[in-house]
Amino acid sequence: MKRVAVVLSGSGYLDGSEITEAVSTLIALSQQGIAYDCYAPDRAQRHVVNHLSGEGTEETRNILIEAARIARGKVSPLEALMPIAYAGIVFPGGFGAAKNLCTFADDGENARLHDDVKAAIMPFVLAKKPVVAICAAPLVLALAAKEAGYSKARITVGYGGNPLSDAIEAWGQMHVSVEVDQACLDPEHAFISAPAYMYDEATPAEILASVQAAMGALKDVLG
Amino acid sequence: MKRVAVVLSGSGYLDGSEITEAVSTLIALSQQGIAYDCYAPDRAQRHVVNHLSGEGTEETRNILIEAARIARGKVSPLEALMPIAYAGIVFPGGFGAAKNLCTFADDGENARLHDDVKAAIMPFVLAKKPVVAICAAPLVLALAAKEAGYSKARITVGYGGNPLSDAIEAWGQMHVSVEVDQACLDPEHAFISAPAYMYDEATPAEILASVQAAMGALKDVLG
Repeated sequence: MKRVAVVLSGSGYLDGSEITEAVSTLIALSQQGIAYDCYAPDRAQRHVVNHLSGEGTEETRNILIEAARIARGKVSPLEALMPIAYAGIVFPGGFGAAKNLCTFADDGENARLHDDVKAAIMPFVLAKKPVVAICAAPLVLALAAKEAGYSKARITVGYGGNPLSDAIEAWGQMHVSVEVDQACLDPEHAFISAPAYMYDEATPAEILASVQAAMGALKDVLG
Repeated sequence: MKRVAVVLSGSGYLDGSEITEAVSTLIALSQQGIAYDCYAPDRAQRHVVNHLSGEGTEETRNILIEAARIARGKVSPLEALMPIAYAGIVFPGGFGAAKNLCTFADDGENARLHDDVKAAIMPFVLAKKPVVAICAAPLVLALAAKEAGYSKARITVGYGGNPLSDAIEAWGQMHVSVEVDQACLDPEHAFISAPAYMYDEATPAEILASVQAAMGALKDVLG
């Protein structure tokens, strides 16, 4: 059985991993018979948002400890991830991708990957082992592609003309528009992306379908 | 389109709703074409558990605000639930059912429903509108059945001989053992239950299948 790493960024779409996408990722991987281990950065979230009001709070929460709510405690510090042990790596979405995995929320097109994220993803990118990114997480994928010196890698955040697709293009990659239940595969670089809640009116069933499209593509690439 | 109420108890299986079960509930309802609104008690969680270490903390969190992480902000205070507006009510599992919806975690077989939960569920039970309960949430269902004066209502928490199935029997109802991907239907009382993570080694795909079995039964009852 092939095994992949899943990188979470907290628990809740406004300050961490989008929960429906993260759960759909684990469901779709297990439906495909792909084993996984979960990881998350062991550091403070950029901030904590009250998901009822949508407003920031004065609280401090740790990304790894919050991610453990999704992973039922079975999650390790991202620094412990050994790329050699995995056939691929998967990033569910949520604003956590832009706030806790890279600095896009603060720096826009001047964003950089956090060091622990860069150390985790680059060995996969450089070895052309599949990297899957959902919803907003293709920001992480595009930054890694830029870091690797790739150009015109095919990546989707659903529809074009938004700040995320603009950043992907600004970083030298190619944004490809797809529907909610489709994945975008770049076979040359082994990149897989799918929009999920980039279509924010999608139903939970459509979110699962979006993630299933990505994991189906992953299964095909893993063989 | 029929519409049901979904009652969350927080966000995280050790002190709130089990996240995979809650997300699977929303996925399976949307797959069945059943509309829903989410509710949660607007009060403090019984306690807050660090899901990485499994240990209690000194933090205070509000059930409704944490449930909003699962529901993407679209959740209302349980006290605002108007039973007349819904064709049924659904309770995902997690220890939150035993800690925040009723007092089972503290009082065992002397448990009682919290007032806001009792006010929400009893109109459905007494009107024989379907009540669905997943994993540990059948505790809430059994307490409501006892309150209604029912006996031998058929309810599952997966396998028998555990503290939950013992409580269900002590409260005068009948525990029925089922596999992880099966639901237990009591047609006389319109009760539907399914075990999900009562089988704690189940995969996320099996959890979705368990919840889908329950929502398929709900669809049949709703017609």
